[in-house]
Amino acid sequence: MRLRKVKDVEEKILNYEGIIILNPTQYRGKWRELFKNNNPIYLEIGMGKGKFIRENALRNPSINYIGCEINQSIIYKAAKETVNIPNLLLLNYDAFKLEECFANGEIDKIFLTFSDPWPKSRHEKRRLTADAFLNVYKNILVKDGIIEFKTDNRNLFEFSVMKFNEMRYDILELSLDLHNSEYENIITTEYEEKFMAKGQVIYFIKVRIK
Amino acid sequence: MRLRKVKDVEEKILNYEGIIILNPTQYRGKWRELFKNNNPIYLEIGMGKGKFIRENALRNPSINYIGCEINQSIIYKAAKETVNIPNLLLLNYDAFKLEECFANGEIDKIFLTFSDPWPKSRHEKRRLTADAFLNVYKNILVKDGIIEFKTDNRNLFEFSVMKFNEMRYDILELSLDLHNSEYENIITTEYEEKFMAKGQVIYFIKVRIK
Repeated sequence: MRLRKVKDVEEKILNYEGIIILNPTQYRGKWRELFKNNNPIYLEIGMGKGKFIRENALRNPSINYIGCEINQSIIYKAAKETVNIPNLLLLNYDAFKLEECFANGEIDKIFLTFSDPWPKSRHEKRRLTADAFLNVYKNILVKDGIIEFKTDNRNLFEFSVMKFNEMRYDILELSLDLHNSEYENIITTEYEEKFMAKGQVIYFIKVRIK
Repeated sequence: MRLRKVKDVEEKILNYEGIIILNPTQYRGKWRELFKNNNPIYLEIGMGKGKFIRENALRNPSINYIGCEINQSIIYKAAKETVNIPNLLLLNYDAFKLEECFANGEIDKIFLTFSDPWPKSRHEKRRLTADAFLNVYKNILVKDGIIEFKTDNRNLFEFSVMKFNEMRYDILELSLDLHNSEYENIITTEYEEKFMAKGQVIYFIKVRIK
């Protein structure tokens, strides 16, 4: 997500302490204590301004949600709209280092929505479904944990399906045109709505890790 | 492929003996003897009128091709255009029974092109990528044998990708828009050209069996 840098954002996000978890490594293995329940934890990586995860959290109060976003200006925007949602916390962290924040098996599901496609081959390793990231997800996800991935970007989707296959994950659901499929009550992201308005197809895959 | 039944087709195909192999079970394990060489054998299942496999055979004289088509009227049409191509033979046989015609590992590659989508769930078992068919292919294909599959039908493609994944086949190539991808010198089928003219995307996957 491209966004102009918010002025003094480092200070401003301090006002959202408690919504944005500023010292996440200290909760490694203890996120359920922070949520004060023993519910499943679903993590969105690259949540952008957070529409998708907020709607998820509001619809499903018995699931804990964590939205991760590396860009401070964007997480600040997300935080401003995330008030009084007790089952949603935000995280300003690098996806590649998430094992510093989460213990093995602490996460039940990961959402990757409209991730940066990094179209050039030489940037392949930066895609959020590249090997190194999948290894991180595997470690923080519970056994039989789920990854749900959606994008409008064909090349990124092809790449990701091949990666999931290579890792021998089970494909549980697959749609090459999500909004013209059997799926109902789909929660959309900001990006998704723009793409849909342009008539672009949205690709979706749900996999179970081993 | 829908086609009016050719009158007296049972007799007419007899005129193409040698191009259409009328007693294929007797060549089980002996197709290379019939081709009089030791080259790889590529099999298209559901070849229709055979444009795709003919062009393949003409371009690649050092590969043996077999086109299989269950419909007699259609294979008759294919046979009429298949003359003087020594590396191409035709087969009028049920895909489900191909183990009667081929020994274990006798085939190096299988093409499935624009197979009947059988859209209704209750007809799922008839799709050429359903479990029972994949088991047949696995038996007649060599170890590390290849299946190449293309279709315009989204649901059939989604189903097939999931089946290939379930069987733990390696996805070697994947395109969700074959004719706007990096692939070059693509040989098209009759169907494919019609769909392309309508602007429909063609889905493609190439897998390696274990």
